[in-house]
Amino acid sequence: MAKVAVVMGSESDREVVQEVLPFFEYFNIGAELFVISAHRTPEKVKEFAASAQENGFSAIIACAGLAAHLPGVVAAFTRLPVIGVPLDAGPLRGQDALYSIVQMPAGVPVAAMAIGKAGVRNAAIFAAQIVALSDTDVAERLKMFKQNQCRIPK
Amino acid sequence: MAKVAVVMGSESDREVVQEVLPFFEYFNIGAELFVISAHRTPEKVKEFAASAQENGFSAIIACAGLAAHLPGVVAAFTRLPVIGVPLDAGPLRGQDALYSIVQMPAGVPVAAMAIGKAGVRNAAIFAAQIVALSDTDVAERLKMFKQNQCRIPK
Amino acid sequence: MAKVAVVMGSESDREVVQEVLPFFEYFNIGAELFVISAHRTPEKVKEFAASAQENGFSAIIACAGLAAHLPGVVAAFTRLPVIGVPLDAGPLRGQDALYSIVQMPAGVPVAAMAIGKAGVRNAAIFAAQIVALSDTDVAERLKMFKQNQCRIPK
Amino acid sequence: MAKVAVVMGSESDREVVQEVLPFFEYFNIGAELFVISAHRTPEKVKEFAASAQENGFSAIIACAGLAAHLPGVVAAFTRLPVIGVPLDAGPLRGQDALYSIVQMPAGVPVAAMAIGKAGVRNAAIFAAQIVALSDTDVAERLKMFKQNQCRIPK
Amino acid sequence: MAKVAVVMGSESDREVVQEVLPFFEYFNIGAELFVISAHRTPEKVKEFAASAQENGFSAIIACAGLAAHLPGVVAAFTRLPVIGVPLDAGPLRGQDALYSIVQMPAGVPVAAMAIGKAGVRNAAIFAAQIVALSDTDVAERLKMFKQNQCRIPK
Amino acid sequence: MAKVAVVMGSESDREVVQEVLPFFEYFNIGAELFVISAHRTPEKVKEFAASAQENGFSAIIACAGLAAHLPGVVAAFTRLPVIGVPLDAGPLRGQDALYSIVQMPAGVPVAAMAIGKAGVRNAAIFAAQIVALSDTDVAERLKMFKQNQCRIPK
Amino acid sequence: MAKVAVVMGSESDREVVQEVLPFFEYFNIGAELFVISAHRTPEKVKEFAASAQENGFSAIIACAGLAAHLPGVVAAFTRLPVIGVPLDAGPLRGQDALYSIVQMPAGVPVAAMAIGKAGVRNAAIFAAQIVALSDTDVAERLKMFKQNQCRIPK
Amino acid sequence: MAKVAVVMGSESDREVVQEVLPFFEYFNIGAELFVISAHRTPEKVKEFAASAQENGFSAIIACAGLAAHLPGVVAAFTRLPVIGVPLDAGPLRGQDALYSIVQMPAGVPVAAMAIGKAGVRNAAIFAAQIVALSDTDVAERLKMFKQNQCRIPK
Repeated sequence: MAKVAVVMGSESDREVVQEVLPFFEYFNIGAELFVISAHRTPEKVKEFAASAQENGFSAIIACAGLAAHLPGVVAAFTRLPVIGVPLDAGPLRGQDALYSIVQMPAGVPVAAMAIGKAGVRNAAIFAAQIVALSDTDVAERLKMFKQNQCRIPK
Repeated sequence: MAKVAVVMGSESDREVVQEVLPFFEYFNIGAELFVISAHRTPEKVKEFAASAQENGFSAIIACAGLAAHLPGVVAAFTRLPVIGVPLDAGPLRGQDALYSIVQMPAGVPVAAMAIGKAGVRNAAIFAAQIVALSDTDVAERLKMFKQNQCRIPK
Repeated sequence: MAKVAVVMGSESDREVVQEVLPFFEYFNIGAELFVISAHRTPEKVKEFAASAQENGFSAIIACAGLAAHLPGVVAAFTRLPVIGVPLDAGPLRGQDALYSIVQMPAGVPVAAMAIGKAGVRNAAIFAAQIVALSDTDVAERLKMFKQNQCRIPK
Repeated sequence: MAKVAVVMGSESDREVVQEVLPFFEYFNIGAELFVISAHRTPEKVKEFAASAQENGFSAIIACAGLAAHLPGVVAAFTRLPVIGVPLDAGPLRGQDALYSIVQMPAGVPVAAMAIGKAGVRNAAIFAAQIVALSDTDVAERLKMFKQNQCRIPK
Repeated sequence: MAKVAVVMGSESDREVVQEVLPFFEYFNIGAELFVISAHRTPEKVKEFAASAQENGFSAIIACAGLAAHLPGVVAAFTRLPVIGVPLDAGPLRGQDALYSIVQMPAGVPVAAMAIGKAGVRNAAIFAAQIVALSDTDVAERLKMFKQNQCRIPK
Repeated sequence: MAKVAVVMGSESDREVVQEVLPFFEYFNIGAELFVISAHRTPEKVKEFAASAQENGFSAIIACAGLAAHLPGVVAAFTRLPVIGVPLDAGPLRGQDALYSIVQMPAGVPVAAMAIGKAGVRNAAIFAAQIVALSDTDVAERLKMFKQNQCRIPK
Repeated sequence: MAKVAVVMGSESDREVVQEVLPFFEYFNIGAELFVISAHRTPEKVKEFAASAQENGFSAIIACAGLAAHLPGVVAAFTRLPVIGVPLDAGPLRGQDALYSIVQMPAGVPVAAMAIGKAGVRNAAIFAAQIVALSDTDVAERLKMFKQNQCRIPK
Repeated sequence: MAKVAVVMGSESDREVVQEVLPFFEYFNIGAELFVISAHRTPEKVKEFAASAQENGFSAIIACAGLAAHLPGVVAAFTRLPVIGVPLDAGPLRGQDALYSIVQMPAGVPVAAMAIGKAGVRNAAIFAAQIVALSDTDVAERLKMFKQNQCRIPK
């Protein structure tokens, strides 16, 4: 079973970030959540990112608000696809996080999703689209997901 | 050899969009460019997107300026990963295109890159990161690319 | 009796979108509401839009939040006037939807209204102004509406 | 032959505003251009707008930059559909004009187009879409325009 | 006793607009409030503005939200100083009103104050500063106001 | 003859600021220009502002770019009406200066004009509107100015 | 013991500004809070700032919302490092205050922190980093703070 | 002699970043410039930042455009004061870099300066203000700098 790493900068982000879980369950993809901070625990971020590929992850979802350096810093230390989700935190409502995530300079891409909950959900679906390229079971589930108008059947 | 489709809304976008080419050459990934418009030739967009997977593409890069619906409309008709690049066109300098691309509602993700040339280049690299998950040759080239500080050696 | 189609991307938009109804009742114009998504049900959008004119509609009002591709995609498949209303959804409060709707490239216009409820109401009035050009009853009602300081008399 | 009024606030706007002309020629719709200012010649604006319907116009296109009150003031004095085009003028590059035009309060709609030249062109096409509802010749030309991928054939 | 006219576009603005009253009472300046709309009752706006000087007003304060054309339209019909206050209405929180008020083209100035309640209060104080130039009683009260750290003594 | 003080933060602002001069000449109002900086020469700003009224000025126009504290600091030290003009300087094109000038807290108003040259010109006209309240010659010239469509006759 | 001055424009800012206190207690730095306004009590601001160095302060933290001139005005009268915190006040949510604080012209720097509570806390930490350069006790506490993942131990 | 490290993400930033040099020369502070990238050479950034204090630097100036993670990543690995300068790069003109630099979460401050050249210069002056707290020679030069109206004498 393929698995995806989901990282967030703070415990307080967990409530919105765990919106990925029903999607990964539906797509039958393993998900592991990590709380690591690009600013407060940079060594852990490096260790996590540098070993993510050999630890068997297929992609990394990184969620952060405000200056939101986490996705870019993770991307600096891995060759895996990194999907960044700007969170709706603080008075600028995630516009700061969006710019910090999407405006990566040439050489080190991060794939930005929408701000907040919609972006968290889409990050999981996008990860499934990546996994599906080489996993026929996930591909089949993705097909059903599209046929069901991009919703998880109840 | 894996291949990636690169679509743009207008011939006038070609100059900046073809910045993908040296990267795909370096990564040894095939690239095909298409000029199709979500608004002027919507049928062609549908045909292209609906058949992209069976036509052997691994991912789709869609570049557009202004209202920039092309990436989202392509994503509606395919299960392949769609990478969207907002182009720097018109007086709002691509901020309109960024919002149109990144703020996709839950269910149909588009992976947004930076506005303009940096985003075009990163779209190619990100596509290579996706392909590398199941293509050891591309994975090897990506490793060299990272070792070379994320630049194509001259 | 003239009729106007009113489309929205999601059931959750219905509460604000149905603000059109008292206006269409006042102007004696028929209104039909449709829930169709440019991203989740693109085929339905195409079918709806491509047949709207022969189905007797005089204009189409399309309401959407976030990336808000619905009005532009509808406009791609019809020659009817399309009126787009950006909805106040998500942390960017409709500024994303406004840009996605108003910044249409040359060739395929969408008429943008104000963000949210004011825009929904004005979309109905604007549709009535279009219909009134060839419908003397609606023209008469519009005249009374203006005389009543642009309010529906109680 | 139907005709449309095109108003602008200043002679200096004429160069971009006259981009409507090839479109009206193609659609065989008469166009009359007026330079009137909501702030410097408000009486002329009122006279123009209040008499536009009886003078035989089917719609009014109003183009303005900066605070851009012209479309809204015209709309206050007429029941005709008013199409507003924010022009790219001054350091805010038309974002000020866009807000001034699109954020009309409930009761008096203005149909906003894209900022600048794309908006000017789309205003003409949108006016043609309105006229086409009751003019079969224009309807036929509009059909050809769509078939020609929304471009005027050379 | 000098007097100042205070106009607003809608009854719903009255609660915030009447924040001018304690200031005018303190400065011993007469204040008259009017509800007139640049879009719904444009004739009334013209009549009001064109006669404001002969009716003995020394300045006009005009408050409006959203597209906020009221201050500019009033200024078009009077030679009195017009002070505009953008109100915090709608999802754009008064940024639309600010642009619509402050970005007046050369020839017809409007003096913009801060968005919302702070702006309403400052409009009254600014009007007092204007009146004080030729009214020694108001000048004396203004002096006391500054000495009291720009607050009305309780 | 009434006179108005015009202050700017830097010699480099003089070219755009002196756009006030033809207007003051037309209105027969004296104008004195000062280069003083709220940050580099704060004592001079205080001295200037605190003595402006006794030095016979009727109003103060303060022009500044970037953080643009000059108008607010001048207003802190005088009871004269202060008119602030945000200049188009730096990469934010005057939006920073606009916010710094217009968002004054309750108690100390500054009257904001449009960004850049249009604002400079309107500041002079607005000052004339203030002076005209108690100067019949200026009032007469202002009347002619309005009759001439708010332009200086050649 | 080193000490830092913390100034705010209004009593109403105290609740968020006193978030500095636990940090200064942890770092064993003295903190004195002052309520002084750049606009309402400019003389006090000057006196405070001009004497801050001889009064033994090592740095000044200045917090303000809206036009937020306080940090820049303080910086004009002192050679001490001035740290500015934009507060989340009014409808623009601190973006106005951010621009007013960060966009200082060359010559008189202010060090801007994040908008609101995060910025207040970081201002205290940044002041400690400055003090730590010449105070080994503070340097030691700062080292522990970093080792504790940039949090105050409970 | 005190010394300050000045880091930038790319060789192409050197032209604007070296605007610090005349200031450091004037203040008699040593300056060393480094080109290191948070994304392309993250290990070098860590090494540089983690050893900056023991290498004798008193402060670090970090300049970056676009997503601008460099200042925050440096701050994560050092206890020295980090001064961040957003550069004017790309279509968003440094607003993206400003948000990425200034909106640091609580715990790890970065002191943001103005966008572009003014910010580069002020970063050097601010570093001198920090150094001056414990270096009487620099303090004396800073005093002269202020007396010379915050300009380097020619």
